[in-house]
Amino acid sequence: MAFSLRVILIETEYEINLGSVARLMANFSQSPLYLVRPKCEVGFTAKMHSKHAAHILEDAVVCKTLSEATKGCKMVVGTSGVARRHKKLLRNPIVPEELVERLEKGKFSGTLGVLFGREGIGLMGDELAACDTLITIPTSGDYPVMNLSHAVAVVLYALTSRGKRLDKTAGMADSGEYAALMKTFDMLVERQEPYLKNLAKSRLAFRTVIGRAVPNETETRCMLGVLRRTLTEVEGKNEKGEKGKKK
Amino acid sequence: MAFSLRVILIETEYEINLGSVARLMANFSQSPLYLVRPKCEVGFTAKMHSKHAAHILEDAVVCKTLSEATKGCKMVVGTSGVARRHKKLLRNPIVPEELVERLEKGKFSGTLGVLFGREGIGLMGDELAACDTLITIPTSGDYPVMNLSHAVAVVLYALTSRGKRLDKTAGMADSGEYAALMKTFDMLVERQEPYLKNLAKSRLAFRTVIGRAVPNETETRCMLGVLRRTLTEVEGKNEKGEKGKKK
Repeated sequence: MAFSLRVILIETEYEINLGSVARLMANFSQSPLYLVRPKCEVGFTAKMHSKHAAHILEDAVVCKTLSEATKGCKMVVGTSGVARRHKKLLRNPIVPEELVERLEKGKFSGTLGVLFGREGIGLMGDELAACDTLITIPTSGDYPVMNLSHAVAVVLYALTSRGKRLDKTAGMADSGEYAALMKTFDMLVERQEPYLKNLAKSRLAFRTVIGRAVPNETETRCMLGVLRRTLTEVEGKNEKGEKGKKK
Repeated sequence: MAFSLRVILIETEYEINLGSVARLMANFSQSPLYLVRPKCEVGFTAKMHSKHAAHILEDAVVCKTLSEATKGCKMVVGTSGVARRHKKLLRNPIVPEELVERLEKGKFSGTLGVLFGREGIGLMGDELAACDTLITIPTSGDYPVMNLSHAVAVVLYALTSRGKRLDKTAGMADSGEYAALMKTFDMLVERQEPYLKNLAKSRLAFRTVIGRAVPNETETRCMLGVLRRTLTEVEGKNEKGEKGKKK
């Protein structure tokens, strides 16, 4: 991501939400936090719920107006719990995933303001109109309204995690061991030729399933160990049988 | 999704988390909730935080053991806040997005148990070992540990929202209007030929940007209205000038 997020909360009522949002911002490595006319104190309860993210609360910028809070943002995204409500506003909210795709296609850089409304009623008409685009979390038609901080959790995750894979390269099995695993399985398959309808299909099933799982080094070795031992045993080379217990 | 989720919480300490999880499950249309040896009552505070999802708390299945709670699940996924911790356990947690991809590729159907550990220390070794796979939310290295209910929010979102786009077909502009918008812009471009370096590029820029935005019917009509009026004006057909105000 070449862009940074600014979380903007409008007229938040509950300290627990302020604290939870600060903690979430730290969890997703985001700052700063802007508060437009907060309805509660940034007090003890907020700090308690922010846990190790009290610094984000301390650094929070309190503003009187939304335009003050969005100053310096290249683009402002509003969040909305009820997609249907905005028909008259000329805009269909999109899902966070779509927003990220568009930001990437448009090579967006700079600060993206993300606006969250009041606990009860969300963003007002003029606030929605000040947004460049709207996003909504796809929720149940029966009960679409999420708690504020949980909506922040989902939006921060969705905007920051795209395409993130955990670095597994260090743990990946080397190609020799992986190939040995496949070969050993193939040999087990071949031994069962009289009983199997389609040898190629049996081989392919294992390849496909294991390939999908991308096993790491330890996993590959363990499986290889078991299959090799099994192969040794079925081949009748039972002079090494004792070692098998060490697996 | 051809599969259903079962949310399993182990030894949860705080009612607020039980209530928030129930609300989230309703937000994402999921049930049932299983509780393994909850450390708190499913009482008033839990109900209050569940808001309109008290039924999920009332229907929650309380179990003494994890195996009781996972009975009937085709696969059990454990959630873990600290990816590094599991090196000795033979497994690299994957991100939720990857899990969904694998489930889709494997055409998984049936019940997927999703296991969340204790507020402080997560899942224990034997609980992790009972999982078929582990997932983790990509969070900050400095402060990776999310609040329980916020982790549930992200996981439920990630497992249920993939590929969900809001239904915009009803609102999409018909192809004639969309084409008219492009044509009108092109005509504006052509009028500026003496001043523009590359007409084709100017045309393409508009096409690309508008295309990426997938405007709906109202948006398309509004833009078309403005451009048509502008074109009329620059073409000097100012006898219709008065109508322009109606736009």
